[in-house]
Amino acid sequence: MFEQLGLVGCGLMGGSFALALKRAGLVKRVVGFSPSETTTARALQMGVIDHIATSASNAAIGSDLVLIAVPVSATQASFQAIAQELSSNCLVMDVGSTKSDVLAAAKAALGKKLVQFVPAHPIAGKEVAGVEHADVDLYTGCQVILTPTDLADLIDNSQLQQATSVWQALGCKVRHMSATDHDAAFAAVSHLPHLLAFAFMNGISSQKQRSEFLDLAGPGFRDFTRIAAGDPKVWRDIFLANSAEVLAQSQNFRFSLEALERAVLAGDAAAIEALISQASHIRAHWSLNGPSIQ
Amino acid sequence: MFEQLGLVGCGLMGGSFALALKRAGLVKRVVGFSPSETTTARALQMGVIDHIATSASNAAIGSDLVLIAVPVSATQASFQAIAQELSSNCLVMDVGSTKSDVLAAAKAALGKKLVQFVPAHPIAGKEVAGVEHADVDLYTGCQVILTPTDLADLIDNSQLQQATSVWQALGCKVRHMSATDHDAAFAAVSHLPHLLAFAFMNGISSQKQRSEFLDLAGPGFRDFTRIAAGDPKVWRDIFLANSAEVLAQSQNFRFSLEALERAVLAGDAAAIEALISQASHIRAHWSLNGPSIQ
Repeated sequence: MFEQLGLVGCGLMGGSFALALKRAGLVKRVVGFSPSETTTARALQMGVIDHIATSASNAAIGSDLVLIAVPVSATQASFQAIAQELSSNCLVMDVGSTKSDVLAAAKAALGKKLVQFVPAHPIAGKEVAGVEHADVDLYTGCQVILTPTDLADLIDNSQLQQATSVWQALGCKVRHMSATDHDAAFAAVSHLPHLLAFAFMNGISSQKQRSEFLDLAGPGFRDFTRIAAGDPKVWRDIFLANSAEVLAQSQNFRFSLEALERAVLAGDAAAIEALISQASHIRAHWSLNGPSIQ
Repeated sequence: MFEQLGLVGCGLMGGSFALALKRAGLVKRVVGFSPSETTTARALQMGVIDHIATSASNAAIGSDLVLIAVPVSATQASFQAIAQELSSNCLVMDVGSTKSDVLAAAKAALGKKLVQFVPAHPIAGKEVAGVEHADVDLYTGCQVILTPTDLADLIDNSQLQQATSVWQALGCKVRHMSATDHDAAFAAVSHLPHLLAFAFMNGISSQKQRSEFLDLAGPGFRDFTRIAAGDPKVWRDIFLANSAEVLAQSQNFRFSLEALERAVLAGDAAAIEALISQASHIRAHWSLNGPSIQ
């Protein structure tokens, strides 16, 4: 049970966390800061927060849990703002989709208090932003990746254990890995699909028949492009923060695309079928949160 | 009301059509042929068909409606098989995802009876094949594209009007266009997304950490790759039948992908955000069967 959650950033991710923590009976009060007064007023009205903080540092005062839930580009400034106010028993987490950059920002800003920070990435989200979409069940059943600042300290890291317990109490499946491994994996399974979906939509919109094309699109298009509606600032920051891994994955994707294109150009039915079969087999045997195939 | 539907191909698409036609009270009996005796036995048992035909030509005898619902590669042979048995009042349709190749096959096989053929593409499907997945509601609410053999005859084409009425009676929204326009549009909004989804899955599977990666994939990955589980033979045939349009769309996609990659490589935040905003705006304003944006 936490006495006070200091919420730095009262949007979809932070707001949903506060609602879930409250429902689980894990926090007595929530103090929230957002640079937008409209946002904090709405968060207060919705019961997401109980008090409005006038700054990020004010949100940290008296808190034994601080959640940084701001756009990636505002992460470092948020760490700097809270650094002086953190009590020694306060656990700090974030919810960002990239972890190496967050870790670097924390190292630069938190100094000796770095051990109190446990980077977190809940694999959840929506194509809409803002506290008005906050959802008490946004994190229910999802995976949360924790990338502790020093994996070697994993056994003795009470902050890591506490962070793990919090997310588990919200119904999440928690995994630990290094920030580097995290960013490599998510470049492959999340950032690249977004890059491709954005590029695909732009490819459609570059054609003069785009309106006719879009009229004809069906359920396959709907699902394939759902992530293309993602927030531009969020995804801009993710691509910038993880650019090397994203570009490496894009290059790797091109090899696979070229192999298919060559087979189609050659009219090589057997080669096309073999390439599709490989993809289809893997996808048909994959399921969300299910056991992976080898 | 049709006296007899001759179903050539008793799989997911044909089986679902027969079930829907029966429920709508539009057919007295269904005679079905499939090269697999297991399939026809199952179709009979499920009530999809009422009689088993021993050949495609036998399914056409006495039918006033014939539906060709076979893999694209078997389309021409099916037309040849039924050509001699078609009565002059019989309407013939198919359900293929490509139309120029089907039209060419029909022209080659049907001769003067070509006017009885109305190529049809219902925008519906599943990632599973076979009559056991036949679904009376597969076509309910979907779009059906009819690509009449001669658009100039559209007004006087009673077969086209009859075909339109049949699909409308099944709850579909019917559109007419040329086979060429159809294939260009579906290369953009259906075939290319499948090509990209297959290539993406193969790109993942080419990496030694594929198992770890797949374990971490979330809801975005799930939706983006759903179509990658498509049937290899079906998609092989579609890519071969529409190869020029598919390769042109793939090339166009590459330009969009390269623009994003260049912006990421340059760390150009404004350019990245602008490119994502364009994609996100279009997708956020699109909806299935909804009005298109300009």
